[in-house]
Amino acid sequence: MSLSEDQTNAIPAARESGQPTLRATVPALEARLYEPVSLLDHGFVRVIDYMGDDHAIVQAARVSYGRGTKKVSEDTGLIRYLMRHRHTTPFEMCEIKFHVKLPIFVARQWIRHRMASVNEYSARYSVMDREFYIPAPAQLAAQSALNRQGRDAVLEGTEAEEVLGLLRDDAERCYRDYAWMLNEGTEENPADPTRQGLARELARMNLTLNTYTQWYWKTDLHNLFHFLALRADSHAQYEIRVYAEAMLEIVDAWVPVAARAFRDYRLGAVSFSAPMMAILRRMLAGETVAQPDSGLSVREWREMMASLGGTD
Amino acid sequence: MSLSEDQTNAIPAARESGQPTLRATVPALEARLYEPVSLLDHGFVRVIDYMGDDHAIVQAARVSYGRGTKKVSEDTGLIRYLMRHRHTTPFEMCEIKFHVKLPIFVARQWIRHRMASVNEYSARYSVMDREFYIPAPAQLAAQSALNRQGRDAVLEGTEAEEVLGLLRDDAERCYRDYAWMLNEGTEENPADPTRQGLARELARMNLTLNTYTQWYWKTDLHNLFHFLALRADSHAQYEIRVYAEAMLEIVDAWVPVAARAFRDYRLGAVSFSAPMMAILRRMLAGETVAQPDSGLSVREWREMMASLGGTD
Amino acid sequence: MSLSEDQTNAIPAARESGQPTLRATVPALEARLYEPVSLLDHGFVRVIDYMGDDHAIVQAARVSYGRGTKKVSEDTGLIRYLMRHRHTTPFEMCEIKFHVKLPIFVARQWIRHRMASVNEYSARYSVMDREFYIPAPAQLAAQSALNRQGRDAVLEGTEAEEVLGLLRDDAERCYRDYAWMLNEGTEENPADPTRQGLARELARMNLTLNTYTQWYWKTDLHNLFHFLALRADSHAQYEIRVYAEAMLEIVDAWVPVAARAFRDYRLGAVSFSAPMMAILRRMLAGETVAQPDSGLSVREWREMMASLGGTD
Amino acid sequence: MSLSEDQTNAIPAARESGQPTLRATVPALEARLYEPVSLLDHGFVRVIDYMGDDHAIVQAARVSYGRGTKKVSEDTGLIRYLMRHRHTTPFEMCEIKFHVKLPIFVARQWIRHRMASVNEYSARYSVMDREFYIPAPAQLAAQSALNRQGRDAVLEGTEAEEVLGLLRDDAERCYRDYAWMLNEGTEENPADPTRQGLARELARMNLTLNTYTQWYWKTDLHNLFHFLALRADSHAQYEIRVYAEAMLEIVDAWVPVAARAFRDYRLGAVSFSAPMMAILRRMLAGETVAQPDSGLSVREWREMMASLGGTD
Repeated sequence: MSLSEDQTNAIPAARESGQPTLRATVPALEARLYEPVSLLDHGFVRVIDYMGDDHAIVQAARVSYGRGTKKVSEDTGLIRYLMRHRHTTPFEMCEIKFHVKLPIFVARQWIRHRMASVNEYSARYSVMDREFYIPAPAQLAAQSALNRQGRDAVLEGTEAEEVLGLLRDDAERCYRDYAWMLNEGTEENPADPTRQGLARELARMNLTLNTYTQWYWKTDLHNLFHFLALRADSHAQYEIRVYAEAMLEIVDAWVPVAARAFRDYRLGAVSFSAPMMAILRRMLAGETVAQPDSGLSVREWREMMASLGGTD
Repeated sequence: MSLSEDQTNAIPAARESGQPTLRATVPALEARLYEPVSLLDHGFVRVIDYMGDDHAIVQAARVSYGRGTKKVSEDTGLIRYLMRHRHTTPFEMCEIKFHVKLPIFVARQWIRHRMASVNEYSARYSVMDREFYIPAPAQLAAQSALNRQGRDAVLEGTEAEEVLGLLRDDAERCYRDYAWMLNEGTEENPADPTRQGLARELARMNLTLNTYTQWYWKTDLHNLFHFLALRADSHAQYEIRVYAEAMLEIVDAWVPVAARAFRDYRLGAVSFSAPMMAILRRMLAGETVAQPDSGLSVREWREMMASLGGTD
Repeated sequence: MSLSEDQTNAIPAARESGQPTLRATVPALEARLYEPVSLLDHGFVRVIDYMGDDHAIVQAARVSYGRGTKKVSEDTGLIRYLMRHRHTTPFEMCEIKFHVKLPIFVARQWIRHRMASVNEYSARYSVMDREFYIPAPAQLAAQSALNRQGRDAVLEGTEAEEVLGLLRDDAERCYRDYAWMLNEGTEENPADPTRQGLARELARMNLTLNTYTQWYWKTDLHNLFHFLALRADSHAQYEIRVYAEAMLEIVDAWVPVAARAFRDYRLGAVSFSAPMMAILRRMLAGETVAQPDSGLSVREWREMMASLGGTD
Repeated sequence: MSLSEDQTNAIPAARESGQPTLRATVPALEARLYEPVSLLDHGFVRVIDYMGDDHAIVQAARVSYGRGTKKVSEDTGLIRYLMRHRHTTPFEMCEIKFHVKLPIFVARQWIRHRMASVNEYSARYSVMDREFYIPAPAQLAAQSALNRQGRDAVLEGTEAEEVLGLLRDDAERCYRDYAWMLNEGTEENPADPTRQGLARELARMNLTLNTYTQWYWKTDLHNLFHFLALRADSHAQYEIRVYAEAMLEIVDAWVPVAARAFRDYRLGAVSFSAPMMAILRRMLAGETVAQPDSGLSVREWREMMASLGGTD
C-alpha cells in the first residue's frame, strides 16, 4: 500500500482528534475513516469524509408524506421500497468523499462518471511518483475470443514472464527518461546544471498508462450506487472492479439497510423485456417454448435462458 | 416561524444527541444546526447537515501540489487565490443540506439551479398546510417603469390595503375550496360521507402561488456560491434574496475564509470587457473619454460609468 | 389549442423556408416540425429543432470499435443491444428541442428532470395569459384509498359539477384580481390613472397552479427516454402523461429503431431482484411456491405475482 | 492530419448528400461540416452536427418577454446583453458535436469538463493506432521558474534533440511491445500461433500518454463557451489551446454574433474585486495609490497593475 510518508504520518493525528457533533454519525464508518484499503500493487481507497446515514434517506423521503410512520422496521421497508421502485432522489441526500490511488488507465474509465467532484494530483504542477501497476500473474489473461472486451484463460509459461518483463521494463524506462527530461534532480542524483529541463506539463506525456495517480473523489449515494452497479459487476474490468468491491464494503458499513437493498434489487437484479415477460408467462403456464417460436433473436434468447439458469 | 409542531419538538432531542466524530467539524455551525432562521411571514431556512470546512478546500487543492506549504496564513491565501482565479473544483468538496420553507413562486425560481438535490413536500401524497405569503406593506412595490423585472416605489394609501385584501381573500378562498374538494375532513369539520372527494393530485391545482411548500435542498459549496451570487444580489427579487442572505450568513459561520473571499471577489466584483479595459487605460492616463468616442453603446457606457461611481 | 396568434402566424413561413443541409435529416420529423399537438384544454407540445437520427447512435457506438460492421440490419441489432444493456452514452448524441404549453402544477413535476435546458415564460417580465386547466369530467377522479398518490373512480353527479365550478370560479377570480393589481390596462379596460399598479413579480403570486405557462425544453435522447420511462408510465399523473405520450409518438417518427427498442426493453420491462429470480427458477422447475416460503415480504410477493399476471 | 482511410473516404459522400430541412441552418458552418482542421502532428477537430444558430438564442430569451421586438439590430443587442450579464440558459439552446483526435494527456484535461456527452475510441475493444504526439521543436519548452504550471524558454541545442529522441523512442518501443503482447498479427507480421496473446484491456496499459485517441464530443454553446474561456486562454497548455482556438473559429462561423460577444465580454474581460474597485475610483479621482496603502496583497496588487497595463 502506497500512501506517502506524509499521508501515513497524518492518520494517527486525524484519528485521535475526535470532536462532538450533532450531525448524523455512523460509528462503523468512523472506525474506518482515513484508513486505506490496499488494492492492486500500490493502490488504495479510503474514506475522508461522509454526510448522512440510512435515516437521512428516510427523512428525505418522508418530507413528502408529512407525518409519516416512524418505526425502525418501517424505515427498512421504506428504503427497500425506494430502491425497488427506483426512487432515486432520497439517496442523493447522503454524500461521501474518497481518497483513491489508482493506475491512469483505470482513472480514465472512472472519470466517465460525471456526477461527481474530483481533484486529481496534477502532473502539470508536480512530479509523478515512480509507481506502476504490474498485474499479478493470476490476472495476466488472454483476450477473450467470444467477448471483445473480455478476458479468457490466464497466460502460461514463458509468455506470462515475457509480458511481465516488458510491462516492468517499459514503465521503468519511460519513468527514468521522464525524470531525465525534467532534470529536477534528487538528493542522490543532482540536476545537471548544463541543461534547462523540460516543462513538467510536457515531460508527463512520456509516462505509461499504468503509472499511478491519485485523487479526491466525492459523490452522493445515488450516483455511487450507479457507479457500483456498473463497476462491481462481473463484466467490469478486474482492475476497476477491485475498487468498486472495496467501496461497496465501505457502503455496507455506512448505510447497511440501503446497501442490502442495493445488493438485492440492483446488483443481483435481472430485467425482462415485454416480449420476454410474455414468454415467461407461457413457460409458467406449463408450455415448452423454444427459441424459434419465442419471437426473440438468438442472442436475446441465450441471454434470457442464461439468466434463468437454463440452457437453450 | 412555521416549523410544524413535530418538527419543533424534534429539535431539542437532535441538539442534545452529540456524538464523537473524526470528521472535519465546525463548532460555529454546530451551534446553529437544526435551528430555523425565520424569513418572510411563515418561511424559514435551517441547516440539517454539512460536510467539510475551509481546510477541506485547501486539502483538495493541495492534492495537486504534493507536499504543499501548510501554515494557516497560507491556507487563507490559497483559498483567496482559488476564488480570485475561479478554480472551482476544490469548493465542490464541501457539502451542505438545508431544510427550507418557502412560497411556491419562490420555489419555482430556486429550482432552476439544477446542480443540487431536492426532496419536496408532495401535494400528490399529502395535504398542503394552510399558509400563504402575504407581503409586509413595505414590500408592496409598484412595477418599475425602467426595469421590466424590477420594483419601484411602495404602494400607498388604499391601493396597498386593497391589494393586501385581495391577496389574503383569494388565497384563503382557494384553500377553503381545495379542502372542500378533498373532503378529507378534520376534527372540527368531519368529511361529508355523501361525497367521494377529489384526488389530491388534482385538488392542488386550485392553490395560489403564494402557498408555502417545503423541501430538503442539498448542494456543494461551489454551486451554493453560484446560487448566492445570483440570489443575494441586489437585482434578485426580494422574496428569494432574504433566503440567500440568510444562507450567506450561515456560510460565514461554516467556512469563514471562503465566505470572505466570495464576498470580496464575487459578490462585490465588477467585470470589464476588453473594450472597457481600453477606455479605463485611457482614463487612467489622464484622457477625458465621452460615450460617443468610447466605442461603447449608450447602455454599456452607462453600465460602466455606474460601476465606476461616476456619471455620464 | 392555444398557440398565440403571433406563434400561429409564424408557422407557415417557418415551414416554407426549407434550406439544404448536409446534416442528418429525418423526413418524418421534418413533416411535424413546428406543428403543435394539442393536449388537455389549452396545452400543446411541438418540435422546434432536432439533431441526429438512429444512425447517429450507431456512429457514436462504433467510434469504440474502429472498423465496425455496417449493414442496416446490424444497425438495428446494435441499437437494440445498447438499449438492452443500458449503454447510455450513444443515445446522448441525439438532441431535441420542444416548445411546450402546460399548467404550472405540471411544470413543477417536469422541471425536476435536471438534465435539460429550459427557458420559461417569465411572469416577472411579462403578464400571464388568462388560460387555466380545467379537467374534462372524465378526468375528475376521487382519491385512491389504496395508493396515496393515485386516482380512483370518477366523481359523479353534483359533486363533479361543484368541483368544476369551483376550479373555474377560483381561477378566474384570481386572474381578474391579478389583472386589477397590475393595473396595466387593456384596450377595453384602460388602466386606472389614480393607482400605481403592483409589480408583476409580486402580482403573479395570486395566480392558481392550473394557470398555463410555456417553455422551450431541450434535452438529449438518453435523458428524454428517462423522462418518458417515468412519465409515459401508467403510474404517472394523467396530466403529465399525455405530454409524455405525445412526445413518445414524436420520438417514434424521429428515431424509429431506438423508440422501438425503448418500448420493448424499458417501457414494458420488469426487473426481478435476486431473491425473485431464485423463486422464478423454483417455479419453472415445477415447484409450487407460496408467499410464506418465498422469503419475500407480502408487498413484494404481490408485486411479483402481479407482474407475472398471476394471483396470490 | 490523420483521419483514417475509411473516415477520409466517407467525407465526399457525406458532403454531397444535401437534403432539405426546415430547421435553423447556417451556410457558413455547412461549408465546414465533416472537414477536419489539422492540429498538432496527427490531431484534428471537425464538426459532425449542430443545432441552432444566433437566432435560436434570441428566440429562447424572448420566450420570457412575450411579444418582443424583432429587428436584427435588436437581436445583436440582446445577445450582447445576455452575454454581458451572464444570462446563460439561452446559450444552452444551441448544440454542437465534434469529432476530435487528440493525445491521451490532452484528453485527460478535456474530460474534466463534465457537462458534455462523449463516446471515445475504446482500447478495451479495439487496437490503438500507432500514432504519438511528438512536439515540434518550437514547443519544447523548459519549466517556468515563476509559474509551477507554465513553460519558459525553448530548449536549445543537444538537449532538445535528446528530448525528442527519447519521446520518440519510448513511444515506439512501448507501442511495439503492446503489439507484441496482443499477438494479433498483421498482414506483414502474422500472429505467433504458440502464444495466447494478452487481453486488450490489459495490454493498453503499456502505451505512453502521448498516444492519440479520438472521440465524439457534444455540448451546448453555454458549456462550450465555458470550455473556451478556460482553454483558449493564454494560461492553458499549448497542446489543448490549439484545439480550443480551432473550435472558437468554428464558433465564429456558426454563431457570429454570440462569438463576437464572447470575445468581447468573456475572453478579454477582467474582473475587479470590491477592494480593487475602491482603488480604481481613487485612481480615477487623481490620487496616486501604491501597494502598501492599497489594502491589497502584493500578489493581488501585481495582478491588478498587470491588467491595467501599468507597473508596480
